[in-house]
Formats: sequence, C-alpha cells, structure tokens
Amino acid sequence: MSKNIKKFISVKDLDFNFIEKIFYLASNFKKESLNFNFEKEIISLLFYENSTRTKKSFQIAAENLKCKIIDFEIKTSSIQKGENLKDTIQTLLNLGSRIFVIRHSISQIYKSLIKEFEEENIYIINAGDGSNEHPSQALLDLFTLYEDVGGFKELKNKNLVIIGDCLHSRVARSNIYLLKKFGINVSLVGPRALIPSCFEELDVKIFHNLKEGLSKADFIMVLRLQKERQEHSFLNNINEYIKNFGINEENLKANEINIKNIKILHPGPVNRDVELSSEYMDNKNISLINQQAKNGLFIRMALLYDFLNQL
Amino acid sequence: MSKNIKKFISVKDLDFNFIEKIFYLASNFKKESLNFNFEKEIISLLFYENSTRTKKSFQIAAENLKCKIIDFEIKTSSIQKGENLKDTIQTLLNLGSRIFVIRHSISQIYKSLIKEFEEENIYIINAGDGSNEHPSQALLDLFTLYEDVGGFKELKNKNLVIIGDCLHSRVARSNIYLLKKFGINVSLVGPRALIPSCFEELDVKIFHNLKEGLSKADFIMVLRLQKERQEHSFLNNINEYIKNFGINEENLKANEINIKNIKILHPGPVNRDVELSSEYMDNKNISLINQQAKNGLFIRMALLYDFLNQL
Amino acid sequence: MSKNIKKFISVKDLDFNFIEKIFYLASNFKKESLNFNFEKEIISLLFYENSTRTKKSFQIAAENLKCKIIDFEIKTSSIQKGENLKDTIQTLLNLGSRIFVIRHSISQIYKSLIKEFEEENIYIINAGDGSNEHPSQALLDLFTLYEDVGGFKELKNKNLVIIGDCLHSRVARSNIYLLKKFGINVSLVGPRALIPSCFEELDVKIFHNLKEGLSKADFIMVLRLQKERQEHSFLNNINEYIKNFGINEENLKANEINIKNIKILHPGPVNRDVELSSEYMDNKNISLINQQAKNGLFIRMALLYDFLNQL
Repeated sequence: MSKNIKKFISVKDLDFNFIEKIFYLASNFKKESLNFNFEKEIISLLFYENSTRTKKSFQIAAENLKCKIIDFEIKTSSIQKGENLKDTIQTLLNLGSRIFVIRHSISQIYKSLIKEFEEENIYIINAGDGSNEHPSQALLDLFTLYEDVGGFKELKNKNLVIIGDCLHSRVARSNIYLLKKFGINVSLVGPRALIPSCFEELDVKIFHNLKEGLSKADFIMVLRLQKERQEHSFLNNINEYIKNFGINEENLKANEINIKNIKILHPGPVNRDVELSSEYMDNKNISLINQQAKNGLFIRMALLYDFLNQL
Repeated sequence: MSKNIKKFISVKDLDFNFIEKIFYLASNFKKESLNFNFEKEIISLLFYENSTRTKKSFQIAAENLKCKIIDFEIKTSSIQKGENLKDTIQTLLNLGSRIFVIRHSISQIYKSLIKEFEEENIYIINAGDGSNEHPSQALLDLFTLYEDVGGFKELKNKNLVIIGDCLHSRVARSNIYLLKKFGINVSLVGPRALIPSCFEELDVKIFHNLKEGLSKADFIMVLRLQKERQEHSFLNNINEYIKNFGINEENLKANEINIKNIKILHPGPVNRDVELSSEYMDNKNISLINQQAKNGLFIRMALLYDFLNQL
Repeated sequence: MSKNIKKFISVKDLDFNFIEKIFYLASNFKKESLNFNFEKEIISLLFYENSTRTKKSFQIAAENLKCKIIDFEIKTSSIQKGENLKDTIQTLLNLGSRIFVIRHSISQIYKSLIKEFEEENIYIINAGDGSNEHPSQALLDLFTLYEDVGGFKELKNKNLVIIGDCLHSRVARSNIYLLKKFGINVSLVGPRALIPSCFEELDVKIFHNLKEGLSKADFIMVLRLQKERQEHSFLNNINEYIKNFGINEENLKANEINIKNIKILHPGPVNRDVELSSEYMDNKNISLINQQAKNGLFIRMALLYDFLNQL
C-alpha cells in the first residue's frame, strides 16, 4: 500500500461502496463467520474526553481482532494542546502502533494532525471531535436503522426526528450528513437555544414543538442533555425542557403522537426520565438502544478490520 | 443452559457439593493439570471501591483462562447509584460480556440488579458489598484452612478466632456463615464498639479481651483496622487498640497465649504493627497470609471456570 | 536456576558480554527473527512516578513476548513508603508475577527491596529511581549511538555532550557511567546550578557555555528541563536558559557550531522550543529521537527476553 496517512474523520467522505462493505463485514462479524489474526497490530486509544461506550467498544472490537491495545489515559481536566498530541502520536507510532482512535474536545483537531503525519502509513480515526462529528456513531445508527427496515432501499423516505441538544451534538451533525445520503428525511426538534439557525443550512426541517415535529416520525433519535457542556446554561430549567420536549408517555399523549408507530434511538448514556422516560427506554418494542450498542461493536470491528487490511 | 441470571452473592447459598467441586478445581489449577480456552469471553470488573488484591486476583484468574477483560474504572469518590449500575451492566452486556465482578459500597446492591436482569444468561459475582459479604474471600480462607489441616473432616471442631473490626467487615460475616457449615468453632474478639450485640444472633462466642478469646485458638483471623470506614471514629485511640488487641509478641506473652500452637490469617492489606506485628506477619511458620493470597487466585480461577461452563 | 533474586538496577553492573548479547537480541527483534512464548509470565508495572514512554514501552515489549501485564496504578501524589512497596510486590508475587518493573521517586529504593526478597526467584528492574539511574534508557541510547556509528569500535573517542539539567537527571548519570565504558568522551554543558561540582568526580569535562562545550561534539544529548522537579527553582528564568543553553539555530550560529557535524538525542518528552528547537527536533538528518524511542522497545524486549530465560 502507498505510504500515506489514511483517515476516518467525517461521514461526508464516505461513499456508498464503503458503507456497503462495512455493513457486510459487520453483519458477518455478528454471525462470527470471518477469520482474522492481527496480533502484531497495536491500536492506540487516545480519549481526551470521558467516554465509556465508545472507548470500550473500540477496545473490545480491537481485542476481538486479536490486536494489542495502548490505552493512553488522560485526565480530562488537563486537556492537551494539538502540539502535544502530535508528539504523543509519534511516541505511540515509535512503539509500533499504526491505528489511532482519538476523541478530543477541539473540533477539527485532526486537520493539523493529518498534515503532520501525511507521509506515514497510519490510520487516524475520529471517535468524536468537539461538537463537530462522531462518524462511527452515525454508521452504527444507520446500520441499526438498516437492519430494522430490512435494507438500504427501505430507508428511503423514512422520517427520522433528532430531538434535543443539537447545538452541542456531534452525533446529530454526523447523522444529519449521513442519513440524508440514504434518502432519510431528517428533521430536528428542540428549543430555539439548542437548535440555532445555522442548522437551516443543512437542509433539514426544524420544529420547536413536539406536536408538529413528531407528527410523521418513524424514528426518534433522542439526544443526551449534555449537562457538562452547558456551563453557561442555555436552558433556564431542566424541568421546563422535560415538560416541553421530554419523550415520555404524558407528552406524547398530550401531543397526540402514537408511540406504536415509532422506534426510539439514543446514543447513550441516557439521563433516565430527563430526555427519555425509563418506561420507553426499557420497552423492547419501542427502543433500539441496545441494538445500537451491540451494533457499535460490530461496526467498529468492521472498520478496524477494513483499515488494518489497508495498512 | 436456561436463559436465567446466575449469581454468586452470599456464602449462605453455597452447598457442600459446590464447594467440593471448587476446591477440586482450585487444587488442579494449582498443579496446572486442566485445559481451557475461553478466549471469546469477556469478564467485566466493576470496582466501585478501591481494591488491589481482589481486583488483580480476578483479573489474572480471568486472563489465565484466556478471557478478555473490561476494567470499568470508577473514581471511588463518585459512588454511583443502583440505577446507573444497571445501565452500565447493560452497556457491557451489549459488548458481549457475560460475567460481572462487582464491588460496591452498598450492602445487598445485588438484589435489585438480579431482578433487572433475571432473564439474561449472565453471572453476577459479589466481590464485596458494603459490610455485608465477600464470598470469594471466605472460600479462599476456607480453602487455606482445608489445605493446612489436610481435609474437610479435619476442620471439624477447630477453633478459629476472628479478631478486630467485625462491625465493618464483610470478610468476617462471610467467614462466620461459611466456616460454621464445616464444624469450625468461630469466635469473635475485639472492643465492644467493633463487635456490637447483633453478632450474638450469629451463634458465635464473643470475647472482649485477648486472654479469654485466644485461650483455645487454633487459628486467628486478624482483620484490617479499616481506618477509611471509621470517620465517626468508634475508637478513641489506635494505640489503645494496639495495646488491648494487637496481635504481637508482647500482648500474647502478657496474656499467656502460646503462638506456637496458632496460625494467623489476614485478608490483607495488613496495617503492619497495628492489628498485627511485622514479626508474626513475616514468620512463615506462623502466617498463612501468602497462602491465602496465592489460593485466592486459584479459587477465583475455579469459580470463573465453573461459571463460564454454566453459561 | 538458583532461587535468588536477580536485578537490573545500575549500568555499573553491566559487563560487555551482557550488553553485546542484549544488542544482538534487540537487533534480531527489530528484524523479527526470534520466536518466543512466555504466555504464563506476568510482568508487573509499578510506576510510582508519571511515565508514558518508559511504561508503554515496557508494556508493549512484554506483550510482544506474549506476557500478561499487571498495571499497578498509583496516584503520583500519594508516593508510598518502601515498606508498602514490599507488601505490594509480595501481593503481585502471590499472583504469579516474577518480573517487577519499578519507577520510584526515591533514589536507591531497590537496596532494601533486594534484601527483602533475596531468596525469591524474581527479577527487579529499575525503570528510574529518583535522580539516580535509568539503566534501560542508557542502554537504548548506547544502542542508538552504536547503530548510528556502525559498531562498538567506532564509538571509541566519539565526543558526546550532555546538555541541561544534569542535577536532576537519572538519564545523565546512567549515560555517563555507561558511555564512558565504551570509550566515548562524555562532557556536560549547562548552568552551574544544574551541574554542581560533584559531577567532577565522575571524570567528565564540564562547561558552562555552548561555544566551548560543543566545539568538538559529535552527539548532543539534550536533557528535558524538568520543571516538575524544580519547585525551589534553581533557574531564575526559563528565557535566560533558552538564551544561553537552548539548542536552536540562533544559538548554534552565534557560537559558531556547525549543526551538520552533530546528531541530537533527547530522552523525551521534549519541551519544544525550550531546551530544543522544533526545527532541529523534527529534522530527520539531525535528530535521533525517534530512533531512540523505537530502539527503546527492542532493547526492553531483549532485556525481558533475557531475564525471563534466567528465571
């Protein structure tokens, strides 16, 4: 292979053939019908923000492929500068690591990194950059929808509503970009403070009340209220948010939304009975949340498998 | 196997056949005569309280069986609620883990957990819940005694004295329940503040001075003075405790106890020269402490091996 | 093998045959021509001071040899006493670990440890003790020089200048002892406060300005300005240090030193544009820093391989 950095940074770069291949691999890993042995490979996990789901999911995905792991533990408080990140990656590269899974609070931190290492035969994977993108999450969400409806064709013209804190959400941004490529009608619901007007440019419908927003929904993707990102709180009151936008039986009935026609996604972890009621979350006929988490493992195995084969 | 949660929570649930099987396995692991390959299994370690011995012992036991590990690191300061623990376990279950080794500061936290996951084919292992139980510790203590005396029969009518902070000790509670099943006479020695009257209900003799308490002892199980659990200190003075209950040459001579007839156990880590003198601790003719730690590994391998075969 | 503790504590104990063997092994590991299987062995990493490079390097070295790892995580703030370290090692020994890689803030902490465990068949490896020694770093530095010049003979009469904070540097001390054994002329350059007169006893030339110090240099080993060790700051001013001793184009030109004749080493992590300019650091014709880090892995694999074969 050519000696050139490779990257998985934004869903905008993913074409249909790549996604089809990844879904094929993920389906096969689910059935355990593939063989592999990457025991010489070292996957570096650099999580400059707290994470459980994504980090452990990449860890187990890598270990299932027999890779070694370097878990580069970073105190969340001492967020490091881009320059230090470069030297850290060089150190791990010197130890033989060629795949770097990075979560960082700074949006688009990868741009400068990719320039620094452009001649190296390595892979940079975005596991969430600030409020910009989280491409592996969007892929696992799309895969969960794809499995639920039964194929790519069936995704066309489905209505998916993202509800909540879009402003701070890299999950929302990656999903908007990705799902629209497959003909899904994406709309956003939430208070004005959490869905600023810049989202209009992304060619999605925006609603500020549940009744209108959910009237045609096939899927609701509920976002986590990211309390930790809201120091200068945009919300006067969590209770007011729950009253107006909480996905729970009371609100859906009051707005004449029939939950029986809808399936719910959430990237996790859920603030139970805040943005989503425990009742809906734990109802296996309504919630796709566990499928999302399970698929996350297989999608990440598929990504790593494909990336390792490119190195 | 039936799709049902399995549990290892309390020594009260363990029958003789199970214990005999575990001891047989542990003895064999000690001689390395068993084969195994559980490389698809993931053992989750959820330690909501600090631990070195128990956690590393379960880790190496799992790795010796070729399992993968998810070490779910939790800051001890932010003790989490039962509800969050449920979602954490669900997340790890979604990643393919089926065995959950949990230490938690809340006694009996497992009750609600077991209800939540009753239909899942998983195993919940209690690695210490508050001041309630620590069943794998009691099993390794019993196994150490069993090896020392040469069999189950020989345990009968042996006198074992637990000395120290019984009030806060899950080790004491699990050992009292377990050792009495094998005919061992268990008695407790310590200041009134650390052995409250509720212990009388457990059908053990209680003494408040060394002379009476140790007069017939074959084994002394010294407990750690758990300074970290004694914020509202029951003890006026550590020095007074050492003077009255410290296991050291001076005290034993003063109370006419012959150390040559006695063997000492301690769950570790020892506060050297507080509850136990360094001299006794490091004397291989007196101390069984290293045997306990070594057996801990083999007992935990045996437990995991047996549990994995049930899933 | 004899039941006796073995140690790798000081470069002073290393003879030529040992070093030749380690370099032979390291060269072979670099080419991957050796086979090994130490999957029953457990390497304990006890880092009582922060470390990335050395710790991850030993981790991957051990995992490349198929060993298991116990990463004994220690908060740097709560530096533990020698007595506790003894009990910690005993605990890990009870779990089956026989190799202990230790970094500690106390110089010569190993002396008492080695006495405590003198009858055990274990290996104690010094990964840095206070400001005393860091022998695996000196070996990897020597190996990097050896590769650069093409053999042991060619090292003779080469001039290597260590520049910077020698006072606090275990890297400097180990390198002085080791490199002089191979006929390398070692000299030290830096402000008086960082190279106290005690260094004169080590039979090295000392200079307090760049012009004299670097006039004949073949290699410059730049040391990290260890800000964290300089609470009672010996330096009035970082800027003054940079002005007088920073290795950068401006200073070298001003002192008529031709960088084209010189290669630069640094143990890492570099304070970019403090003790060393980014320009020189990233110039592959000048800097041997990445080679040092890469060789660190192979030297540590060679050491562990040799030590495991002795147990």
